[in-house]
Amino acid sequence: MTELVTTVGAFQDFCQHARRPLALVPTLGALHEGHASLVRQARSDCATVAVSVFVNPTQFDASRDLERYPRPLEEDMALLRQAGADIVFAPSVEEVYPEGFVTLVECSGPALGLEGAARPGHFQGVTTVVTKLLAMAQPDAAYFGQKDAQQLAVVRRLVTDLNIPVRIQAVSTVREADGLAMSSRNSALSPEDRAAARVVYRSLSAVVDLYGRGQMEASELEAGCRHVLESEPRIDRIDYVALVDPITFAPASPADGNPVLFLVAVRFGDTRLLDNVVLGG
Amino acid sequence: MTELVTTVGAFQDFCQHARRPLALVPTLGALHEGHASLVRQARSDCATVAVSVFVNPTQFDASRDLERYPRPLEEDMALLRQAGADIVFAPSVEEVYPEGFVTLVECSGPALGLEGAARPGHFQGVTTVVTKLLAMAQPDAAYFGQKDAQQLAVVRRLVTDLNIPVRIQAVSTVREADGLAMSSRNSALSPEDRAAARVVYRSLSAVVDLYGRGQMEASELEAGCRHVLESEPRIDRIDYVALVDPITFAPASPADGNPVLFLVAVRFGDTRLLDNVVLGG
Repeated sequence: MTELVTTVGAFQDFCQHARRPLALVPTLGALHEGHASLVRQARSDCATVAVSVFVNPTQFDASRDLERYPRPLEEDMALLRQAGADIVFAPSVEEVYPEGFVTLVECSGPALGLEGAARPGHFQGVTTVVTKLLAMAQPDAAYFGQKDAQQLAVVRRLVTDLNIPVRIQAVSTVREADGLAMSSRNSALSPEDRAAARVVYRSLSAVVDLYGRGQMEASELEAGCRHVLESEPRIDRIDYVALVDPITFAPASPADGNPVLFLVAVRFGDTRLLDNVVLGG
Repeated sequence: MTELVTTVGAFQDFCQHARRPLALVPTLGALHEGHASLVRQARSDCATVAVSVFVNPTQFDASRDLERYPRPLEEDMALLRQAGADIVFAPSVEEVYPEGFVTLVECSGPALGLEGAARPGHFQGVTTVVTKLLAMAQPDAAYFGQKDAQQLAVVRRLVTDLNIPVRIQAVSTVREADGLAMSSRNSALSPEDRAAARVVYRSLSAVVDLYGRGQMEASELEAGCRHVLESEPRIDRIDYVALVDPITFAPASPADGNPVLFLVAVRFGDTRLLDNVVLGG
């Protein structure tokens, strides 16, 4: 039985009386197998699983992106029922940001570069709504996908800095048969772009190969990735290819001896695709 | 028995196991009878009373003000023991803001004018540390003095906007025999300035008199206040005299029919004194 609530009050009330440990899985809806994996992980760790489905307007930097973001609540509910969620919180924008709302939570540090630079205001929207959702639910653990690795690093920084007593649990990226990382944005790709998009995973696999053969130089690994991406003419732009520390998101290299995160962001038309892989560790 | 802890971990641990309801009284230390009144109110409302004593550097806009702010922890402990606190959390700056700290909580709305304008960054420092303290302690209620009326409005806005489940309790201003509102800053006044400082309360009493005799015009009430303040040559500057809505801090007038807050801020040398009174309601 998966309950659906739409008010902050009903959500708080449910969470306050929920069996512990309580898991929170924050989502924007338009759910896919990646989200199901988050919920199943939460289900196996915790006595109660709460999922929020909220297309948070403040984390969209482009109004066109916000408008066309899909909102298929019935399909989402079916997936969440199947994956074992106990409660779904699907509020309106006015419920989350009532008249008079004036508070922002902002991180610098890991939020500054890459997605932070490409999407002004995006992480401020994320950190503000995540702070609110954590305050409403007061969960013991919250689940985030490794696919949005920078978001994960920012949320970890947020809860450390604000002393929010919650365990942040990363869940591995779920991929399509051809390796494409699952994303709600994949459905916006034309069939031709969808077929071409497998190049993103191929470019990361090339990096893993180079690394496996002993290549430790950041510039060489990045060049190897770009070489594969540039072989695909349907890519309109490579937003970035980067090697960073997984915690601070400062530039890093495997030559430093610590695990590093290799990230890529590309555009097919208006659609940005992100993916990443950890090297070492 | 009043316990003293200095680490976030020990404070969280105490609060997590405390008898409920739990009260939090956040202070900067240098405590006086006004703080004792907050603690006594908390004591009478709640099963457990936690007090934080932390000279939060991020809410000081002037480094000289931060440096000279008194830190008499032994005297503070004696007062808190007397007033009935169960635990005192007196952390170092590094304990609250460890290396890598990069997160800010910021309100606009009630934080924008008056003290917000006079002290850039002040309320951002307040909202960030209050968010942290509330996350650490997870209290049922938190106590703030009515003397810092704008801080009170900002904190109310903060907890509403971030959905922090805590009751914010205002406690009336405690005054010296001559009417001066108690403040840790009063001790920085020279004896001559201290004697002259009673004019602040006299100026508010004049406003209450005018209002009691039917004066509803904001400009007339403000002029009446300024007239009294300007009679005291030891005042170096009137920072502001203002009539605002107690919730939004937007300019307001008793003529509008709602309770309004009359505020005054003056300087004696480097020392700023604040006071306020509610008209109507």
